[in-house]
Amino acid sequence: MYRKEIKVLDCTIRDGGLMNNWHFTDDFVKAVYEANVAAGIDYMEIGYKSSEKAYSRDEVGYWKFCNEDDLRRIVGENDTSLKLSAMVDIGRIEPDDIQIKSDSLLDMIRVAAYVHQMDKAIWLAQHCMDKGYEVTINLMAVSNVMERDLEEALSDVAKTKVPIFYLVDSFGSMYCEQIENLVKKYQHFLPDKTIGVHMHNNMQLAFSNTVTGIIHNCNMLDATFLGIGRGAGNCPIEILLSFLKNPKYKLRPILKVIQEYMLDMQKKIEWGYHIPYLITGAMNQHPRSAMKWMDSKEKNDLVGFFHQMSEKVDL
Amino acid sequence: MYRKEIKVLDCTIRDGGLMNNWHFTDDFVKAVYEANVAAGIDYMEIGYKSSEKAYSRDEVGYWKFCNEDDLRRIVGENDTSLKLSAMVDIGRIEPDDIQIKSDSLLDMIRVAAYVHQMDKAIWLAQHCMDKGYEVTINLMAVSNVMERDLEEALSDVAKTKVPIFYLVDSFGSMYCEQIENLVKKYQHFLPDKTIGVHMHNNMQLAFSNTVTGIIHNCNMLDATFLGIGRGAGNCPIEILLSFLKNPKYKLRPILKVIQEYMLDMQKKIEWGYHIPYLITGAMNQHPRSAMKWMDSKEKNDLVGFFHQMSEKVDL
Repeated sequence: MYRKEIKVLDCTIRDGGLMNNWHFTDDFVKAVYEANVAAGIDYMEIGYKSSEKAYSRDEVGYWKFCNEDDLRRIVGENDTSLKLSAMVDIGRIEPDDIQIKSDSLLDMIRVAAYVHQMDKAIWLAQHCMDKGYEVTINLMAVSNVMERDLEEALSDVAKTKVPIFYLVDSFGSMYCEQIENLVKKYQHFLPDKTIGVHMHNNMQLAFSNTVTGIIHNCNMLDATFLGIGRGAGNCPIEILLSFLKNPKYKLRPILKVIQEYMLDMQKKIEWGYHIPYLITGAMNQHPRSAMKWMDSKEKNDLVGFFHQMSEKVDL
Repeated sequence: MYRKEIKVLDCTIRDGGLMNNWHFTDDFVKAVYEANVAAGIDYMEIGYKSSEKAYSRDEVGYWKFCNEDDLRRIVGENDTSLKLSAMVDIGRIEPDDIQIKSDSLLDMIRVAAYVHQMDKAIWLAQHCMDKGYEVTINLMAVSNVMERDLEEALSDVAKTKVPIFYLVDSFGSMYCEQIENLVKKYQHFLPDKTIGVHMHNNMQLAFSNTVTGIIHNCNMLDATFLGIGRGAGNCPIEILLSFLKNPKYKLRPILKVIQEYMLDMQKKIEWGYHIPYLITGAMNQHPRSAMKWMDSKEKNDLVGFFHQMSEKVDL
């Protein structure tokens, strides 16, 4: 599958950090950065941009804030073709926390929002564009949004100059027919915008759903090294690059980082396919209860977790 | 996704045994059998039927032969609605090794064959039907078969009374558009037969490709507990049951076996998604070189394996 418009965004540090509160070593973050440059990846999302008031530095690492000094320590002046991105969550950032683009190493700000936050997301996205950044809006948890509300949100986004809008399977609960249906709806409401896809792997469908997006002309593709990410994780970038036949992408630098850092990391941070994540995904539920279970002494009591969840939603 | 014609076949012991030479404990085989009965699974493929001359008993366990005494030790008279299946490989079985159905606990024989063996497969399938069994033919490694040869094979199968023909992604190398194309070709040549799907997980597409089969009216679905199977493994049955909304299937008995046996087993037998399997899958190669690598001291040298394979096929 080769299409020159396709861009790959690596969100290893940003989404993977949800599993370890962004306590990655500088060495690892730098290795991921350098591999992305060598592999020809288009964007690297290195973390969240957050207000210092929103989180304690005692609890979360550098990449929950993405201060310029921390960025510079990793990327220097980033004199490469790799663009840097940070995500912002509505309510966790003040407009003044975002400096003007000429003072920042970041190229893109991605605004993550639930449907009821769409007005705020549009305002913040415009604010970031006014300051000189590329922007996207990523609508989370769409599998729980009523059609009426979704269409209103899409209509509102259609009136903006935001160039990229993301289909996000926050719960890892959707399969190809649902993805296709939503992609077509997004394209119907947003004919002039690029549609991006960000998928989760609860039902082992993150890569497959990304392929469905590709087939239906989505051109911004999120992925992570070895699929690291919250809970069941994301679309593995090494599978995506193996599939895309674009000669600009190179697999080898990615494999080197997986080999040197992530095979060990995977023994300590348990992202990826595990039955509790399957259960929340199949039930179209937020993975937080599965993450709590996986962090508890009961983690291997799969029947127990199924029983607990079945009282909420019948599977 | 509910369609009453859909049948699920569990091949945990048969395909999983490729990873440990079928050295499963009776306790485990019995637990899988009982879980399949309780879960409402339609078929359990408990192993291969092979000639005693084809393999040494010192090397492989009971389920490479599926003798009646061994079957009876697990399933008694199998007075349940679960049907039992065994696979046969062309050249590893003599016609006389297959007793008449009334003397056997097996209900179905599945004939696995490469395209050049199709004449022999048809003969053997007819032989099994004559002896009273349900039969299928499973054409292996179709991703390496030339269109002309495939169409000839399908034309030959069309002339038989074999009721079920399988699309098998032996190398885990195919994605949804290829699956759809092949399913439609199989259906075109075999309009009166049921099409089955047996997928591998090298590119994390085993479940997704099974869903593609379902969407296009394939009604025999292979899967295994926790996806155990050769190399990257198979379609995980627990995901498949979560997806199928058929009330006859129950997830809980499957989860119990995963919890009590397979979480530990997974630490000893390394099936599932690993980079060497991704590489052979993406290159449309047999997984044997990846399995050898995973069994060696070099298993974590991913770049080394990529380098070795890249000399054969450029990725």
